[in-house]
Amino acid sequence: MYRLQSLAARSLIAGALDQCSPLTLTSLTGVRHKSQGPSVEKCGQMRFITAEAKASAGRLEGKLREKTLTLDTLNPQVKAVEYAVRGPIVIKAGEIERYLEEVVALCTFPELMDSPSFPEDAKRRARRILQGCGGHSLGSYSASPGVECIRKDIAAYIEQRDEGVPSDWENVYLTTGASDGIMTILRLLVSGKDSSRTGVMIPIPQYPLYSAAISEMDAVQVNYYLDEDNCWALDINELHRSYQAAKQHCQPRVICIINPGNPTGQVQSKKCIEEVLHFAYEENLFVMSDEVYQDNVYAPDCQFHSFKKVLYEMGPEYFNSVELVSFHSTSKGYTGECGFRGGYMEVINMDPEVKAQMVKLLSVRLCPPLAGQAAMDVIVNPPQPEEHTFKQFHQEKSSVLGALAEKAKLTEKILNAVPGIKCNPVQGAMYAFPRIFIPPKAVEEAKALGMQPDMLYCLRLLEETGICVVPGSGFGQKDGTYHFRMTILPSIEKLKVLLGKVRDFHIGFLKEYSGLE
Amino acid sequence: MYRLQSLAARSLIAGALDQCSPLTLTSLTGVRHKSQGPSVEKCGQMRFITAEAKASAGRLEGKLREKTLTLDTLNPQVKAVEYAVRGPIVIKAGEIERYLEEVVALCTFPELMDSPSFPEDAKRRARRILQGCGGHSLGSYSASPGVECIRKDIAAYIEQRDEGVPSDWENVYLTTGASDGIMTILRLLVSGKDSSRTGVMIPIPQYPLYSAAISEMDAVQVNYYLDEDNCWALDINELHRSYQAAKQHCQPRVICIINPGNPTGQVQSKKCIEEVLHFAYEENLFVMSDEVYQDNVYAPDCQFHSFKKVLYEMGPEYFNSVELVSFHSTSKGYTGECGFRGGYMEVINMDPEVKAQMVKLLSVRLCPPLAGQAAMDVIVNPPQPEEHTFKQFHQEKSSVLGALAEKAKLTEKILNAVPGIKCNPVQGAMYAFPRIFIPPKAVEEAKALGMQPDMLYCLRLLEETGICVVPGSGFGQKDGTYHFRMTILPSIEKLKVLLGKVRDFHIGFLKEYSGLE
Repeated sequence: MYRLQSLAARSLIAGALDQCSPLTLTSLTGVRHKSQGPSVEKCGQMRFITAEAKASAGRLEGKLREKTLTLDTLNPQVKAVEYAVRGPIVIKAGEIERYLEEVVALCTFPELMDSPSFPEDAKRRARRILQGCGGHSLGSYSASPGVECIRKDIAAYIEQRDEGVPSDWENVYLTTGASDGIMTILRLLVSGKDSSRTGVMIPIPQYPLYSAAISEMDAVQVNYYLDEDNCWALDINELHRSYQAAKQHCQPRVICIINPGNPTGQVQSKKCIEEVLHFAYEENLFVMSDEVYQDNVYAPDCQFHSFKKVLYEMGPEYFNSVELVSFHSTSKGYTGECGFRGGYMEVINMDPEVKAQMVKLLSVRLCPPLAGQAAMDVIVNPPQPEEHTFKQFHQEKSSVLGALAEKAKLTEKILNAVPGIKCNPVQGAMYAFPRIFIPPKAVEEAKALGMQPDMLYCLRLLEETGICVVPGSGFGQKDGTYHFRMTILPSIEKLKVLLGKVRDFHIGFLKEYSGLE
Repeated sequence: MYRLQSLAARSLIAGALDQCSPLTLTSLTGVRHKSQGPSVEKCGQMRFITAEAKASAGRLEGKLREKTLTLDTLNPQVKAVEYAVRGPIVIKAGEIERYLEEVVALCTFPELMDSPSFPEDAKRRARRILQGCGGHSLGSYSASPGVECIRKDIAAYIEQRDEGVPSDWENVYLTTGASDGIMTILRLLVSGKDSSRTGVMIPIPQYPLYSAAISEMDAVQVNYYLDEDNCWALDINELHRSYQAAKQHCQPRVICIINPGNPTGQVQSKKCIEEVLHFAYEENLFVMSDEVYQDNVYAPDCQFHSFKKVLYEMGPEYFNSVELVSFHSTSKGYTGECGFRGGYMEVINMDPEVKAQMVKLLSVRLCPPLAGQAAMDVIVNPPQPEEHTFKQFHQEKSSVLGALAEKAKLTEKILNAVPGIKCNPVQGAMYAFPRIFIPPKAVEEAKALGMQPDMLYCLRLLEETGICVVPGSGFGQKDGTYHFRMTILPSIEKLKVLLGKVRDFHIGFLKEYSGLE
């Protein structure tokens, strides 16, 4: 335990985990991956050493002169930010990746249009995108809301996805990944001090972008707990409870939904979405619907329903009034092109004057990266039946999503066979979020070290197996329960090996701390 | 004046100007450009109409139900944001653009490595960048601070630029354009309420990202005025005055410098920089040095000195203590690749614990776009003497910068020949910021319309000539003085035509409002 204790003394532990966490899980597996860093252990250790070296350099520097910016004078909202995870990974399929990259490469270096080795489909798409770009170049700024023809393609995609529910392209705004859109909308909503502070309702467990943004903006985090005993479903009674409790000390103004859920993987039923929207309507809440995993649904009895479509089907009284923003991204789905930082948001029923203010705010950041906008276009505008890539593209899409479904099932099954681990079905998204039993002695030991029990567990797992998962405490969980998040992205063979190691580790951990050794 | 009055009644005017402003100046000229929108007048009108239509739609919607998010409930910090300009433009040279785009295209679609039509230089660079990327792909997330080998290339570039002053790559952070870095650093610094609020010293005139960020973060904008009578130089006595005055009501903690200046184009002397750094040292101010125009220096008696190099030359007492962040970008220089949203910041003497907090904040945004990181690498790592593109690259670089120098001179000369316009030499950056005389009758008329006099002037210029420039009031100016900002980017022939139109308009405007008609 010596190393663990010395590690625990340093504040960068969470950060180190963040940097390599789910990414390295794939890296470990050796599949063609989108990860970073050499190996988990190396990654972790390197960062610890670096942190230590820097801290000691800092002490030397500190002798010279008082800093203007120190931990004491740092914006306290920054200190309050917690961010347990550094971004999910990515699955690849040759043709899908190739197609997207072809189009983006053609846009980046248009001389390639003359090359016979690029398919006509890809050239047609690239030409269309470039025609919409200033100077016909990805090197130009676009309008702040994004390239017009891409906004139109996205609106067409949404209409098709939602079986004809109208989508106005002027309501579509390109973003730098979904995160940027979420931050922008929260910034519009958050205001007020003390008792009039803005309450932001978020699910627990949640993707920590939300808690981080809420801390940074000094809003009030209003937790509603997902029901672990019911496959992490959202329970409308819990929403009411959470809202009423929050009203005592803040002004709840917005409800955030993640569907399919991250880290929980649940897929909301249509009935559940109706209840949420009705609740938002009644309580005058602004709705933010994070739908970045809309293509990642695996459970046969589940289906993705967009909040917008359900709102439409509830009738004009709802559809013309509930303020709703939904988010999507290039980083997930079956492409996983996260490095492009592409994304969009569709904004419904926003006050036109507020929309003008939002465009102003977006314009301060000039525009989202053009390559990300182009990647978003390719994703919402996949090969059509008359195009020669159509068949292969759709075969690969099915194969990628089919494999993910299989891995989701496999992960659930193997984990549930381990005593002291309970894993809900992974209905969608890219993660399992199993509950783990941590013996009281381990809980005590963690407390003595000043860390969360699941952090202790995950650090031990990392040290002993090289497997890096993110502790549940970074996402939020009911008091006294412990979890970790792991991706289901490695290949089936690797996943089996990996889950076997998790099982062996867990059994050993239980033994060690239950005094059974 | 009817149309003008009706326009003035709408709040979106500034926004409309922002959207098309300097961009359309180039678009007008018909050069190979990086702009958007069809023509100035069309652009302006379309937006006005849209705004009106939306406002009326809003009134209809408003009848149905009260919005959660209205102008009344909007975060007041968002309302306070002003942003007079939507991004500068761009100059292009065939080979330089080609080279950058080749490398980025190779990174985007690595199969092109096999293509004989790409030069070996470009392939070598692309391979190196991809080796640093997770999964050897631009489609992956990178580490939040950016790809390691790109950070190293940037550090090497800085060392070379600063003639050997050491640069540690771990102090270099990739950003989404320079704007993102500036916002991140300000967010660390801004905290406190009421009398302990953070004062942020900025030049007036300034690039409105600064005032917008300060509003959004609820910091106190502390103005120091550049000396128009002395080529917009920074006067150290004015810094002292501004600082002392600010101390009465806030806590000035940071000084922002733009060198070369935007919109003013001045290039700071070494002596001036020493004075600023000494002042920052004495008053314990954090220094933010916006050096995005470091390659854009035209005046023969001027030279770019980086704040870091000057700090180094002031000796270890300064170099080891003053907290300095400098910013650079892919969007300016001789490449102008703004659509990639590439940029970096170098952070000196930051408290290591604060740096860890900053990395946490950066990690919430996951990572800057990979294509922008790759573009930044190409810019800091231009062709070397042994590479076949070296000669042509450097010829073009000289030619682009030489043409800009000629246009800077030409703009100054033509404007100064107009009665009632006075233009300082454009020593650097990409803009002229001439002072314009506005007759008292026009000032009165503008006030009656509830708009700034230079806004009235610029709107009239737009209506009568189709030329779109940004009013000085968007950048800040001394009370009672009026200016506009225009780019010097159009070709010489077009610039002459354009400046001729400005002259004719100005003379007519003076006549009309001086009762000389």
